[in-house]
Amino acid sequence: MADPTSRGFPDATRRNERARRAILAAALSLVDETGYPGLSIEALAGRAGVGKQTIYRWWPSKAAVLLDACQGLDEAHPDGPEPSPAPDTADLAADLKRMLRATVDELTGERYGPPLRALAAAAACDPVLAAGLTDRLLAPRHARFERRLRTARAAGELAADADLPLVTELLLGSLAYRWLMGRSVLGHADADALVDHVLRGVSAP
Amino acid sequence: MADPTSRGFPDATRRNERARRAILAAALSLVDETGYPGLSIEALAGRAGVGKQTIYRWWPSKAAVLLDACQGLDEAHPDGPEPSPAPDTADLAADLKRMLRATVDELTGERYGPPLRALAAAAACDPVLAAGLTDRLLAPRHARFERRLRTARAAGELAADADLPLVTELLLGSLAYRWLMGRSVLGHADADALVDHVLRGVSAP
Repeated sequence: MADPTSRGFPDATRRNERARRAILAAALSLVDETGYPGLSIEALAGRAGVGKQTIYRWWPSKAAVLLDACQGLDEAHPDGPEPSPAPDTADLAADLKRMLRATVDELTGERYGPPLRALAAAAACDPVLAAGLTDRLLAPRHARFERRLRTARAAGELAADADLPLVTELLLGSLAYRWLMGRSVLGHADADALVDHVLRGVSAP
Repeated sequence: MADPTSRGFPDATRRNERARRAILAAALSLVDETGYPGLSIEALAGRAGVGKQTIYRWWPSKAAVLLDACQGLDEAHPDGPEPSPAPDTADLAADLKRMLRATVDELTGERYGPPLRALAAAAACDPVLAAGLTDRLLAPRHARFERRLRTARAAGELAADADLPLVTELLLGSLAYRWLMGRSVLGHADADALVDHVLRGVSAP
């Protein structure tokens, strides 16, 4: 007779995985529908069809659920969990504009926009969440820009003493600031203007 | 016989003003002690010694109380409610560094740091609050930088087509992004490096 424990284990694993996926999907749909204030462990449990204890067993907070859900979006992306390689044509400004326009699309789109905004808001007052958001969602995005900038610096297109993480923060940080605080809708023209100003600088020639 | 209404009015006004000040002071001290999640209308009422209804009569939310409290900090500042004039020596880079270092001190200091962080977090998910934060606290700070940049552009030190609000966002936005998301402590060297990169640009000379 088969051991009931060994028989039961794959079933429990599959059931857990189904519940986990339902909870992550519920987090994304609730944030999209009601905003972050409308997301609660209770609402999550109801939408996912699980008990609240199931959620508390796996995550310390609603923000932690949302962070896993956003990372799941990255992993489900057509390009896979690793951010696609930065475009590398001969034209640095064009490549950076293409990448920063894609960031604008991501921030203002329905897929990432609402959960990223909720995570940014929660992370501002929660250092542990901020570290998770930085490591798991922001760092891969910054790394793409830094890779393209490093190629440019090696080719002599950038100043030898350009601080590449700082340059990346100038682009992504000021965009994120306008996205979080601003009332105007971000567009591709904003991305282009940022790249032009950062590359050329603003001092008189 | 004196009209009791007209006699009562100044007393009520004084009492209201005392309550209002107590509520604003309570908001700042609670956010400093317990962080934004620990701020509630109930805790505010308890600390200020007023009823919850008094708070709800004057403000729609705890964030609105905090915004008024922060504006009160600006108005109580030694320089008065108008941000002090931007420094205007012959050295644009030095002036901008001095201003951006002061911003670092403000963001990391005990007076503005905790309430500004709480407001930024709440504003990210609340467009009405974001508009209030922008108009009442951020706009005067941006305006100081733009004034100094405008003088520089008029003197031919900046490129004629430099977009001054965008340049200001490059400086303040990327600083705010690192402050909100980052784990490293902001320092004056960060302010200096930002100014140098933005003025000179990063393209090879």
